[in-house]
Amino acid sequence: MKIATVRITPIAVSDSPLLNASGVHEPYALRSIIEVEADNGLVGLGETYGDKPVLDSLTRVKNSLTGLSPFDLTGLWQRVHAAGRSAVRGVELDVSPGSQASHADQKIFGAFEVAFLDLQARSLGIPVHELLGGAVRRQVPFSAYLFFKFASDIDPSYQPDAWGETLDETQLVTQARTMIDRYGFGSIKLKAGALDPEHEVACLKALKRAFPDHPLRIDPNANWSLDTAIRMAKQLQGDLEYYEDPTPGLDGMAALHKATGLPLATNMVVTNLTEFRRNIALNGVQIVLSDHHYWGGLRATQTLAAMCDTFGLGLSMHSNSHLGISLMAMSHLAAAVPNLTYACDTHYPWQNEEVIKGGKVAITGGCVSVTDEPGLGVELDHDALGALHEQYLRCGLVNRDDATQMRKLRPDWSLRRPRF
Amino acid sequence: MKIATVRITPIAVSDSPLLNASGVHEPYALRSIIEVEADNGLVGLGETYGDKPVLDSLTRVKNSLTGLSPFDLTGLWQRVHAAGRSAVRGVELDVSPGSQASHADQKIFGAFEVAFLDLQARSLGIPVHELLGGAVRRQVPFSAYLFFKFASDIDPSYQPDAWGETLDETQLVTQARTMIDRYGFGSIKLKAGALDPEHEVACLKALKRAFPDHPLRIDPNANWSLDTAIRMAKQLQGDLEYYEDPTPGLDGMAALHKATGLPLATNMVVTNLTEFRRNIALNGVQIVLSDHHYWGGLRATQTLAAMCDTFGLGLSMHSNSHLGISLMAMSHLAAAVPNLTYACDTHYPWQNEEVIKGGKVAITGGCVSVTDEPGLGVELDHDALGALHEQYLRCGLVNRDDATQMRKLRPDWSLRRPRF
Repeated sequence: MKIATVRITPIAVSDSPLLNASGVHEPYALRSIIEVEADNGLVGLGETYGDKPVLDSLTRVKNSLTGLSPFDLTGLWQRVHAAGRSAVRGVELDVSPGSQASHADQKIFGAFEVAFLDLQARSLGIPVHELLGGAVRRQVPFSAYLFFKFASDIDPSYQPDAWGETLDETQLVTQARTMIDRYGFGSIKLKAGALDPEHEVACLKALKRAFPDHPLRIDPNANWSLDTAIRMAKQLQGDLEYYEDPTPGLDGMAALHKATGLPLATNMVVTNLTEFRRNIALNGVQIVLSDHHYWGGLRATQTLAAMCDTFGLGLSMHSNSHLGISLMAMSHLAAAVPNLTYACDTHYPWQNEEVIKGGKVAITGGCVSVTDEPGLGVELDHDALGALHEQYLRCGLVNRDDATQMRKLRPDWSLRRPRF
Repeated sequence: MKIATVRITPIAVSDSPLLNASGVHEPYALRSIIEVEADNGLVGLGETYGDKPVLDSLTRVKNSLTGLSPFDLTGLWQRVHAAGRSAVRGVELDVSPGSQASHADQKIFGAFEVAFLDLQARSLGIPVHELLGGAVRRQVPFSAYLFFKFASDIDPSYQPDAWGETLDETQLVTQARTMIDRYGFGSIKLKAGALDPEHEVACLKALKRAFPDHPLRIDPNANWSLDTAIRMAKQLQGDLEYYEDPTPGLDGMAALHKATGLPLATNMVVTNLTEFRRNIALNGVQIVLSDHHYWGGLRATQTLAAMCDTFGLGLSMHSNSHLGISLMAMSHLAAAVPNLTYACDTHYPWQNEEVIKGGKVAITGGCVSVTDEPGLGVELDHDALGALHEQYLRCGLVNRDDATQMRKLRPDWSLRRPRF
């Protein structure tokens, strides 16, 4: 089996005005959909970032893949490295390691690797979780990912959403209740770092009162100074499952852990193996949020999992805005990782559109099910793909830029970090 | 594809009176040959230790594998763990981690995993190195593995060997020259810890004079005290590629590295992930000798390789006495590991018998070649297997015991460790 054709299709997916440390989500999230077609007609699917530097790199690599065996991941690495030497710099969005040039090769490799593995598994008639060694769970738990947000009518560019505004305690508890009623999530993550820290902590405490049995996480995206993070920790002590990236830098996180003893999690300061090594020396964070999109694919994330197990670190999973192909890649991976010690993050409830047949993947009892369908178990809906590609061309966005979008709504917005 | 039948065949292979820290190799080395047959008639091969506790564990697990997919390594782990809970203790030969009960589950899993991977690859029509991600090298370098030894006529139980006695400098240089002429090895490893350290170091220096361009390693198998190891290091400084397990324990190795600065290698004090972690904290050794037989198979050794890369450790490969199935498993693995930074060890030149069709695997230019033949690229010779199984039954050995064998030849032999 050799690769005959590779197609890369950029798409734009409607998004809501969700607040974060950088600003606000734009009206559309960008993704790239990857189809790797073999000479036997089987197609492997992948999904990754849709920013222009990624798209350019994917496009630069894709033609070099023709004739390669989809089992030859070393061959894929060689082609990614070769193309990477001429790559342009990434969009550098500090809240999202996936946007950083330093992860460029891992990102491009990982994007194709998922499609290669999907193709491998389809050719074998087995699911990806079996290819990865076999499922240790069939139900993969995700957490309710809550955001402070504006109502969608704040800017006519946004599609109307039914969530409305979420800026205070009552609105946040309502958002949580809606999401939990709809999907059955058993734990809650609050994206913070957007509003005043005292207010965000008060909101978290409102969640704790409303959902006393749901483990809670807060993620200020490194937008709190060390002093602020320590001050908030005193208020949060006892409320948190883990404290995710409150303050910048591995040294800052190490100082915070030393000062508070709270379990710290990250998707910002342990994002590659060099940082992993440094974290072992510093004991900065105790939980790593993996993300196959920038860790270099599913197999590399299994290696990360083994390392976390070796060094006694907890393991959870990070997400960016994504659709069902990424969701299923995350779920098959999580199904095969014995030491996934926390429910995974996902933005998936925030997207209404899909590129896969059958529409949105079901989340039931807070979980995505993996089945014995071959590969990732999803098929591309080419009409939907075409429509979302048209939307991409129409919307004019080519790079994620939450700060510029925020300045349209709040002209005095600056990118001071940490803000609080 | 499901597993239909599993066959385990113990064999005995003629060996020579090679000296080590424990004593002397017995007249036969014991191995287990594993055949995993699928319902489509394909057979995956494996080879591992043949000591009774291993054989008993393999036998206990084998019947539980029927009906399992050969891709389901999680299912394999579950069955190994289930059987392991009732396992007897291992033979505890301190020079050989593979003989230790603490590695029991990794050993049994790894033995079957190789056969599963061979079967996976055969069903795909691809070589194992491609299944592991793709070869980064087609020629896998091995080192000349030299031993002090008795002549084979010291005991009529030994088959005659053409190597003769090797106890002094001249004999050792002759052994090296024969082995290098025959196989083209580009580096040399001397198994030490058997004779007086001053004499062993003098022999190593004779090798250095005879082969000034060959990197040299010495492996006293932890049979030198820390003081002796430091004293010998002063004489060896500048002669060694690495200094392998001169002195016992990770703390001892850490003290030795601190005292000498020499690069230390091990297959004795970093033999699982708990020890790997402790080594990072102590900086005891700088090079890990991997061995898929006790690290839990080929995929687990790839994870070890990624960890070595992450933490800046060198990577080489350990061997015990073995035949061609193990040699090809080692070679396919080594072909797919980017950071295999040293030539691998192998006892292979010391064995004349084989269980694979075509007889002994060629070693040319010091290397074993991996090809694009499916799986491990070797087929079982059932006549040869039957003959070596008969030899197993006839010889009466069921557990390796180099010390007892030595006492037959040297009645005053004791197991004092470290001896020097």
